Amino acid sequence: MFYFAIDILGTIAFAISGVVVAMEKKLDLFGVFIIAFVTAVGGGTLRDILIGSTPVVWLTTSVYLFTILGAVIFAVLFIDYLKYLRKSLFLFDTIGIGLYTMVGIEKGISADLIPMMCVALGTITASFGGVIRDILCNEIPVIFRKEIYATACILGGAGYFVLKRLPIEPTYAYIAAIVMIIIIRLFAVRYHISLPNIYRNGNR
Amino acid sequence: MFYFAIDILGTIAFAISGVVVAMEKKLDLFGVFIIAFVTAVGGGTLRDILIGSTPVVWLTTSVYLFTILGAVIFAVLFIDYLKYLRKSLFLFDTIGIGLYTMVGIEKGISADLIPMMCVALGTITASFGGVIRDILCNEIPVIFRKEIYATACILGGAGYFVLKRLPIEPTYAYIAAIVMIIIIRLFAVRYHISLPNIYRNGNR
Amino acid sequence: MFYFAIDILGTIAFAISGVVVAMEKKLDLFGVFIIAFVTAVGGGTLRDILIGSTPVVWLTTSVYLFTILGAVIFAVLFIDYLKYLRKSLFLFDTIGIGLYTMVGIEKGISADLIPMMCVALGTITASFGGVIRDILCNEIPVIFRKEIYATACILGGAGYFVLKRLPIEPTYAYIAAIVMIIIIRLFAVRYHISLPNIYRNGNR
Repeated sequence: MFYFAIDILGTIAFAISGVVVAMEKKLDLFGVFIIAFVTAVGGGTLRDILIGSTPVVWLTTSVYLFTILGAVIFAVLFIDYLKYLRKSLFLFDTIGIGLYTMVGIEKGISADLIPMMCVALGTITASFGGVIRDILCNEIPVIFRKEIYATACILGGAGYFVLKRLPIEPTYAYIAAIVMIIIIRLFAVRYHISLPNIYRNGNR
Repeated sequence: MFYFAIDILGTIAFAISGVVVAMEKKLDLFGVFIIAFVTAVGGGTLRDILIGSTPVVWLTTSVYLFTILGAVIFAVLFIDYLKYLRKSLFLFDTIGIGLYTMVGIEKGISADLIPMMCVALGTITASFGGVIRDILCNEIPVIFRKEIYATACILGGAGYFVLKRLPIEPTYAYIAAIVMIIIIRLFAVRYHISLPNIYRNGNR
Repeated sequence: MFYFAIDILGTIAFAISGVVVAMEKKLDLFGVFIIAFVTAVGGGTLRDILIGSTPVVWLTTSVYLFTILGAVIFAVLFIDYLKYLRKSLFLFDTIGIGLYTMVGIEKGISADLIPMMCVALGTITASFGGVIRDILCNEIPVIFRKEIYATACILGGAGYFVLKRLPIEPTYAYIAAIVMIIIIRLFAVRYHISLPNIYRNGNR
């Protein structure tokens, strides 16, 4: 029930971030919905396709479709007020990537992949919805340019496999990894931490 | 035989629409062929991947490849005359999305998906070839911006599931749904009907 | 061992070509790594997804991930010196497409596809990593615009099926096809051979 609630909040946050980007591009109502949809489910869809877990998850239940539909209607109606919710949305989004990363890692473990590939799957689950959103909107994906985002997923995911080797309850390791991802991301955004600059003259 | 003929006509129309877009971008002969190919088969390919029906359909028969090859050669040679065929092409394209939608819905039913997801699959089959075409050509997909296109697929697909509950022959429901999609699209284009504007100042 | 060495050299060359494109776009370190990764494994991934061979190959072994990681670190550190390696890189890349084409063709044969579709799979394996790289970097894919690249894969792949019918050792046919692809590409680049121009006024 707790996981489900977080999953739905994450889906809503991702969908709303899709609406915001799509409306900046002046897409029509259908376009806005599709962008919101792929932002919310794109990462999980790519994960399922890569490991061959089909039909992909959103085809097997209508929960995601209705959640996203509701989020889109809400966001389109109240687009002007969304700026007041910016902090809440950022928090949902951050909680969402924490959970999505661990969902992806669990899927990888079920598919008998090695830990490193499980972390890769978790990162894909959490971040590739945004990548597909940006490609459809004809932008270079934002996570390739300036944000600590995938890095938080990778560190937290790796942390999970370290914690799992310790003599603690697996559920605690799972929750600790989610919290780690959330804290790394919040910390990085709060203190403007980014990846090391790889360009000599610094004109990024 | 009837279905097959329509399928081939739809493939030709989609392929030619790909050639037109690709030649505007001044791609070379190989690029033009690939764009035509993905426009024609991209929607069905994505559908097959999402439900795990692999190898995807165009890998299992050479009919699509040769049809598209023929359409590309014809379109490249007669690109200057294609404008006189604009109405015929639009009609093939519209018949094509009607049929493609229903092919996708049938595939969804075979995969035991709920009706709503069958409609989603049908819409993906009919419209995502054009989406992939536009992404490869570095454009925001046209169906996200201004056309009643996917909406016709969704309405017609939903209509099919309503009709199927009535005491009529399933084949009639199938054909009626195709006709419904075609009429909605023709009607929308003829009378410049679009989705409701979601932007306050109307500068779309 | 020979095949493995060539495979790794091809992966390195593809990864480095990804780094070069990504750094021109001023992506951050994570973005550069992802672009290098998809350039190197994107074609094989699409191939595996299309035929339903999942989990895709790079999820099942860490060799590719580490090879690409090493290539990215090397390329980022020595980006200024890479221009002196241009010819070596071009040679690795060309050897890489030769081998990747044949790997894809073998996969197609194992999946019981007809020869034409095997050639299509081989071409996808060799060339779609670069296509995905260019899409993620918001460019129209370079192979659709000006290079003899896929064409070499198609000709060499078709040549393989011709040679296989002759009374020669299959391994020789395999190696001959790789050599054919490499020679066609080198020859085309050396003598500036491109596909026939399909535009009347020639302003490509």
